[in-house]
Amino acid sequence: MGTSSSGRAQRVDARANRGRILDIAEEVFGKGGESASTEEVARLAGVGIATVFRHFPTKAALLQAVLVRRFDRLREQAEALLDTTDPGIAFFDFFRHLVADATTKIAIGEALLDAGGDSDGEAAQASNGLRRAVGALLQHAQQAGAVRDDVELPEVYALLVATSRTAAHAGLKDRVLSIVFDGLAPREGTEK
Amino acid sequence: MGTSSSGRAQRVDARANRGRILDIAEEVFGKGGESASTEEVARLAGVGIATVFRHFPTKAALLQAVLVRRFDRLREQAEALLDTTDPGIAFFDFFRHLVADATTKIAIGEALLDAGGDSDGEAAQASNGLRRAVGALLQHAQQAGAVRDDVELPEVYALLVATSRTAAHAGLKDRVLSIVFDGLAPREGTEK
Repeated sequence: MGTSSSGRAQRVDARANRGRILDIAEEVFGKGGESASTEEVARLAGVGIATVFRHFPTKAALLQAVLVRRFDRLREQAEALLDTTDPGIAFFDFFRHLVADATTKIAIGEALLDAGGDSDGEAAQASNGLRRAVGALLQHAQQAGAVRDDVELPEVYALLVATSRTAAHAGLKDRVLSIVFDGLAPREGTEK
Repeated sequence: MGTSSSGRAQRVDARANRGRILDIAEEVFGKGGESASTEEVARLAGVGIATVFRHFPTKAALLQAVLVRRFDRLREQAEALLDTTDPGIAFFDFFRHLVADATTKIAIGEALLDAGGDSDGEAAQASNGLRRAVGALLQHAQQAGAVRDDVELPEVYALLVATSRTAAHAGLKDRVLSIVFDGLAPREGTEK
């Protein structure tokens, strides 16, 4: 019985370690740069490198898990916004949120490619889940008359990706977004 | 005198060769891909590799010259459009033209970086010349009431770059551009 309780404690520890490693990895690799490494993640998480590799056999596996968790979290946020009272505000706020979030995501995605991982597989599935949730937000915003009827998810997503890659200079990003949002809004006199 | 006339002929030949090498290099490196090489440029231009290197001592120098010529040509086109009767059409048409042109330019720019060249120097200067010409087109279009008064060149250029990097799928690019152009247009009721 002592053994069983200690086994449980170990499992709880292992789960806590896994979560902490993912948190730190997201921070370390999200910043980008040459210095980002699995060793640094282990050090900042206060675990040995062996512990990191027990949870994530390769750097690519670690980065893939970071991306999946990040996409899942964004999807959950989008789904939560589906019940808000103003679908227009929900859509445009989430668009802005995704663009702000993108720098970190791009850095992690690039680290994943550098580590020999591919962006297919689990991360792609999680990314598709997010895309579907954005599609639902778009549809609600269109039903509420806050977004033009004639735009579809592919061009909205292309604009998301395009504006995400705009120079990090924050003021410029805001001005670019305001033009894109005006373009997405219904023209005056054509609103429902 | 025979020598002098033959010297002149050689200079004319050299100029013609230089132009042909640039034309072919633009085509070969503009397509991108692994197979693009200085050897292929020499072969397609019908000259020896030594002739290519006599004009352009390095691959980076060749690619730099290709980019400079391309930027200069685009700048001249923009300047020619400044005298057209409809500044709004001129601005939006040229925006569309730059986006269509971008795939090739991006491929050449990437080949230049791969070849160890930098995008500063002459190419950056030529690129700034183009940017200034686009600024003049923008100003004319704003004076004609075809573009919102409150947008400035930095965000217009950021949108140009962003939409240029949109998926090559042509239909999607058109739909993205139509949203961006609507965003740039004056709102109804606020036109001059």
